[in-house]
Amino acid sequence: MKLHGDKMERTPPRSRQEYAAFRTIQTRWMDNDFYGHMNNAVHYSLFDTAVNGWLIEQGLLDLNGSGTVFLVVETGCKYFAEMAFPDIISAGIRLAHLGNSSLKYEVGLFRNEEETASAEGQFVHVHVDRKSHAPVPLTDGQRLRLKRLLAG
Amino acid sequence: MKLHGDKMERTPPRSRQEYAAFRTIQTRWMDNDFYGHMNNAVHYSLFDTAVNGWLIEQGLLDLNGSGTVFLVVETGCKYFAEMAFPDIISAGIRLAHLGNSSLKYEVGLFRNEEETASAEGQFVHVHVDRKSHAPVPLTDGQRLRLKRLLAG
Amino acid sequence: MKLHGDKMERTPPRSRQEYAAFRTIQTRWMDNDFYGHMNNAVHYSLFDTAVNGWLIEQGLLDLNGSGTVFLVVETGCKYFAEMAFPDIISAGIRLAHLGNSSLKYEVGLFRNEEETASAEGQFVHVHVDRKSHAPVPLTDGQRLRLKRLLAG
Amino acid sequence: MKLHGDKMERTPPRSRQEYAAFRTIQTRWMDNDFYGHMNNAVHYSLFDTAVNGWLIEQGLLDLNGSGTVFLVVETGCKYFAEMAFPDIISAGIRLAHLGNSSLKYEVGLFRNEEETASAEGQFVHVHVDRKSHAPVPLTDGQRLRLKRLLAG
Repeated sequence: MKLHGDKMERTPPRSRQEYAAFRTIQTRWMDNDFYGHMNNAVHYSLFDTAVNGWLIEQGLLDLNGSGTVFLVVETGCKYFAEMAFPDIISAGIRLAHLGNSSLKYEVGLFRNEEETASAEGQFVHVHVDRKSHAPVPLTDGQRLRLKRLLAG
Repeated sequence: MKLHGDKMERTPPRSRQEYAAFRTIQTRWMDNDFYGHMNNAVHYSLFDTAVNGWLIEQGLLDLNGSGTVFLVVETGCKYFAEMAFPDIISAGIRLAHLGNSSLKYEVGLFRNEEETASAEGQFVHVHVDRKSHAPVPLTDGQRLRLKRLLAG
Repeated sequence: MKLHGDKMERTPPRSRQEYAAFRTIQTRWMDNDFYGHMNNAVHYSLFDTAVNGWLIEQGLLDLNGSGTVFLVVETGCKYFAEMAFPDIISAGIRLAHLGNSSLKYEVGLFRNEEETASAEGQFVHVHVDRKSHAPVPLTDGQRLRLKRLLAG
Repeated sequence: MKLHGDKMERTPPRSRQEYAAFRTIQTRWMDNDFYGHMNNAVHYSLFDTAVNGWLIEQGLLDLNGSGTVFLVVETGCKYFAEMAFPDIISAGIRLAHLGNSSLKYEVGLFRNEEETASAEGQFVHVHVDRKSHAPVPLTDGQRLRLKRLLAG
């Protein structure tokens, strides 16, 4: 099923090749709401999981050790098609903007083997001090690793 | 704490009087993530709860009976300040756009007795047939009731 | 609707007067699963919210300050009747056992104005050091306040 | 870390070989609560996901088609050790009781490559008519397939 409103003109969803890194996430029974599809808030839980999972894997975030963390200041999502438990979701990640202390990711959610994203989100992180939550500029080393997310 | 990135210029958050209807929602222990504040995906669960709760109360949505339902096609949120369990949240709702079969709500989340929103979201609903999910124009009666959400 | 299996004989659910303290919790849209009722995992989120909310209110738990916290080691729930968004839930709390460093609560979930619990849970907390997670005996002061939960 | 209370004597957790079927589930960022580990309610969401995923795969549950569904009437969990995002969880399933219209599963949650369960749950399903929710006896065909979950 396609989800669209009246006279809504939207940029069509991206394909897998336009994303730089992927994470696989199993949907859960509880993700389905009364309408039998993944509830719109669950998508954001998957964005968080994909981005933070990648950051941890790359050594850019250490939940117990690092003095800085990444806080979310803005998010958004366009829903193009329904996903539902028991689908397996591939979350594609790409970097849309790399600022001084902030980053904007784009995350595409792909259902099972599909090549076109069922939903696309944006996700703005600010790199902050773990205690004061004041913004902290990204180091050159961090920027180098983050640039791996810049799509082709 | 204020959440903001570098050189980010944002419209300041609205006050309570700019919203047309309110719903009260108790935060839950599990809403707090590892950083000790309400996780960014939870905000969307509150938007859904506020808007659908209002629609049900107004007789615009009957979970078991109505032939049409409202599906979400686009959402977004700006996070201005942290909220956390055990805060009580007031969700303010206003209508930003009333189309032929689609509606755009704006939802502000107010922490306890605060007058300024800690987060502001947008939430686009399309009125669809419950089975086919094809868009269905809103009736005059529905539009009349929805207009109660037009602020000021 | 009553939920029951074959030849299942269960102690009937308690009434409100058998609980010592109450917390009110608004259900959320996302609590309803595909079957249109509150998903069985959500009940545990409400138990956590009710018990920790009461502990915080009584000064027995300070999320940011106290050197000890309460960890959950065992939980259970019997589901007697369905609840669903947009129901308002009253969670009744009582103390079933007060050990040296552990406590067993019983939590009843009451739907809207109903007098009989729709679900009843048990919830075992261990009082531990926040860092080492080693059990810490409850002080006399803590025990005195916890005894308020012993039902009449 | 071990989670245990005072004078609590518990049957030690089972190993993988005592379970009959397995499902793999990726933890999510939001599963971690303020204490930095998987919140106790999330375990139940994984039980639901594992059991219903297996039922769907075996053709015993069709979310959109079957005239009968399985409702949960009782659940419980013992927490032996902490799990946390970004762990990968293997959920082992076994059948503890096969009644006329009800079933009791036991579900063990194994963290990453560990051989001993970090948590063990029980989960009682009743086979009911999708509309009336009245219990419906399991057919011989259903029982045959369910018996695959009887552990060696």
